[in-house]
Amino acid sequence: MNIEQQWQQLEKEILVLKQLVELLGWDQETYLPPKAVQDRSEQSAYLQGRMHQLWTRSETQELLAKIQPNGELIHDARLRYWQRELRRLRCLPQELVERQARAVVKAQAAWSKARQESDFAQFLPHLEELVDLARTSAQLIGWQDHPYSALLDGYEPGATVSEIDKLFKELVQGLERIMKKHPAVFDFDNSILHRRWKKSHQVDINLFLLKSMGFDLTRGRLDETTHPFCTSLGADDVRLTTRYDLNYLPSALYGTIHEMGHGLYEQGFSEQVRGTILAQGTSLGIHESQSRFWENMVARSPQWVHWFIPHLARLSGHLISLSEEHDFAKAVNRVQRSFIRVEADETTYSLHIILRYEIEKDLIAGKLGCRDVPELWNQKSQELLGITPPNDRLGCLQDIHWSMGGFGYFPTYVLGNLYSAQFRAAMMKELPLGELLQRGDHQPLLQWLRHNIHQLGSVYVAGELVKRVSGSELSSEYFLNYLDEKYQLLA
Amino acid sequence: MNIEQQWQQLEKEILVLKQLVELLGWDQETYLPPKAVQDRSEQSAYLQGRMHQLWTRSETQELLAKIQPNGELIHDARLRYWQRELRRLRCLPQELVERQARAVVKAQAAWSKARQESDFAQFLPHLEELVDLARTSAQLIGWQDHPYSALLDGYEPGATVSEIDKLFKELVQGLERIMKKHPAVFDFDNSILHRRWKKSHQVDINLFLLKSMGFDLTRGRLDETTHPFCTSLGADDVRLTTRYDLNYLPSALYGTIHEMGHGLYEQGFSEQVRGTILAQGTSLGIHESQSRFWENMVARSPQWVHWFIPHLARLSGHLISLSEEHDFAKAVNRVQRSFIRVEADETTYSLHIILRYEIEKDLIAGKLGCRDVPELWNQKSQELLGITPPNDRLGCLQDIHWSMGGFGYFPTYVLGNLYSAQFRAAMMKELPLGELLQRGDHQPLLQWLRHNIHQLGSVYVAGELVKRVSGSELSSEYFLNYLDEKYQLLA
Repeated sequence: MNIEQQWQQLEKEILVLKQLVELLGWDQETYLPPKAVQDRSEQSAYLQGRMHQLWTRSETQELLAKIQPNGELIHDARLRYWQRELRRLRCLPQELVERQARAVVKAQAAWSKARQESDFAQFLPHLEELVDLARTSAQLIGWQDHPYSALLDGYEPGATVSEIDKLFKELVQGLERIMKKHPAVFDFDNSILHRRWKKSHQVDINLFLLKSMGFDLTRGRLDETTHPFCTSLGADDVRLTTRYDLNYLPSALYGTIHEMGHGLYEQGFSEQVRGTILAQGTSLGIHESQSRFWENMVARSPQWVHWFIPHLARLSGHLISLSEEHDFAKAVNRVQRSFIRVEADETTYSLHIILRYEIEKDLIAGKLGCRDVPELWNQKSQELLGITPPNDRLGCLQDIHWSMGGFGYFPTYVLGNLYSAQFRAAMMKELPLGELLQRGDHQPLLQWLRHNIHQLGSVYVAGELVKRVSGSELSSEYFLNYLDEKYQLLA
Repeated sequence: MNIEQQWQQLEKEILVLKQLVELLGWDQETYLPPKAVQDRSEQSAYLQGRMHQLWTRSETQELLAKIQPNGELIHDARLRYWQRELRRLRCLPQELVERQARAVVKAQAAWSKARQESDFAQFLPHLEELVDLARTSAQLIGWQDHPYSALLDGYEPGATVSEIDKLFKELVQGLERIMKKHPAVFDFDNSILHRRWKKSHQVDINLFLLKSMGFDLTRGRLDETTHPFCTSLGADDVRLTTRYDLNYLPSALYGTIHEMGHGLYEQGFSEQVRGTILAQGTSLGIHESQSRFWENMVARSPQWVHWFIPHLARLSGHLISLSEEHDFAKAVNRVQRSFIRVEADETTYSLHIILRYEIEKDLIAGKLGCRDVPELWNQKSQELLGITPPNDRLGCLQDIHWSMGGFGYFPTYVLGNLYSAQFRAAMMKELPLGELLQRGDHQPLLQWLRHNIHQLGSVYVAGELVKRVSGSELSSEYFLNYLDEKYQLLA
């Protein structure tokens, strides 16, 4: 075997191991017998260990050092991916990685209990340890503008604090403007969503939409879990999950469409990308842009609701009058100042994230001590959302991310919103989006996304991709315009 | 790490790989999207390749050569297991194993088509190749009495042709005697089984029985597949599958109880056996004895049916009268001369197997050419079962085993029947079996099996185990007595 073949074989092995890890995770969330958790963690540790060994052994470094760019798009993109991963891994000593892994196990247990009892003090020492480890990692990885950029880069390759600070500043100002301009959005009535929705009807609705939107059920599935997710066990095995609330339609409806957005990306890689390390979303933000596009820009648009309502009536057995159609569109777009991020609407969602981002940044810079997190959280909540959580369970203890050491992850959620709006604007130059939504004609949308985004996998990093697709750098302007336009339509 | 620790680590790795292979197989039969078969076969090949590499690399041989028996039961049983496996593997050159693997892939496709079209000629060249490979393997492995013993040993360690010839001869004579003595068993009416059985009711019945019989659903599951099976992904993750026929109760009822019998064995290994290579059934025959015991000796006994009928009525919504109780016991014990093995009753089942065994033995000895199989099959079918199949689809093409190169597998099905009856006789010396069945009191039965068989896993080979449990060598007498006794009760 020559060098290139050895490299390909190594890549194939890493891909298979990744797919196996995904299968173990999927099975654990869906069908694993409760007492089999111990067996499962050993199986998972074995695969992760083998994967880590492949990435970090010296033969891999030596092999990659011998590979040169050859001008071929896929080849050189694979090489960039490998070099980036190896650079990160080389910076982090094995001892630090293991310390982090052990700290996370303890921190998750502590967080779960602290959250339940709304007692931040129980979580504090763990948070301190994890922040300390994250700061050390950032130092070892290195950065240009801010240590937080080193962490961010792990989730959103190429993104920096300077860039995000600028985007988020404009976004906060813009969102405040929009909320002032459209005060009615806070008063939309959503009682229409709170009927009784039979589970079998909800399943039928989901399957109808998956088919209509182009998710290939011969190359994927939909199952039920407590926390919805999308996982890819291979190009032809993309699995979505959802949850059913019998008294509130959006949980399953928008949850399924959201995960399907991720799934369409995973099902859409080109033949050349499939079977390579590039067969994955190029960043968390770009991945999130795909889920948000279908969930919000398609399925929360008044035009799409117009198409959907007769199908909803047919499949749910509920009579829905013409006047209720407009109520429905309003209901799924109601804006509300609330404490919990995962329940937030499209407008306030970004504010929830910006709150976390600002706190994380200060923690990593060493400007903020962990013990002061609850106070700063509440103060920022008042500033950004206009409300103060009555306790830490509804405040700084609500999310799992910190207990997993996931500093740098949160901003990608907002980037997803911004990317999706910028892609939408580019799409609208080529497609009559409103008309297509009104007819429920999803195919041109999917084809556009396939051609411009999905097929490429990780060939381009997010920043390059946005520029190629939209012709300009990422900006918050498109997202703000999109919200403004929608709220005018709904008024 | 010392030698013993290295050995343990290698064993752990092989166990995890086995569990992962089982998970891939289970997922493929239950939930894999149809177009993901290619991805799946690559994942499976990767794990199998890694496992094969661990077994066959020279370091493994060298490591095992350094291990000595130390008088400790589990340690020395593990050593015997490893030595036996390595001896077999050492005999078979890599080239032969790969040739066989390739031949099987083609043979299965050819068999499937040949069976559908009932055209033996299409399968003949593949059968010839596989018989040839099996004969070569037998020569390389070596034998004492008959080349077929070398193949048999792969499924039923320690079993030989001389021993099985003797058992099967007595069995055929005995079964003929029984069929003559109880002609009424051919006339039992089974129309009671052909009602409409709602799927949700059948699921309830299955779950009720699993719980009552002691299958731990927190350490296992029940799913639905075309071909029922039991697979173990770990000591706490034993998965059963079944299929539902809405017009015929026994498919799911006895199919589930059968697989549960396998599952109880897998859930019952002792703490010392768990996590070692011994945590598996000690032979296919012993495994089958556990499934047959619960399916036939428990759930087809008139006493158990007496206990079950009120529960069946309650859970199925069918009224079942007292007189119908006896009809039910007869119906599930009806004997019928039929063509298809998998649909056969307890008495003729063994005759179906003996037919295959005799043909296989002659093929492997070189006494029979593959092209003469259909003729010999039909002739033996007439001799043993009294009927001649009208075509090869209902004759020599009905089973998948030969297309998988599985020569030596079939006899283990009959051994399962014989073992189970011999275990039953031993159990009856200590437990009032009839009374317990009449009360549906399954716990003492399970405890007896756990203590005498399950907990031991593969510590003893089948021959040793039977002698320990029953005090004597395997004999067909117990099985024949059991059938005679049951048919008397039912008359």
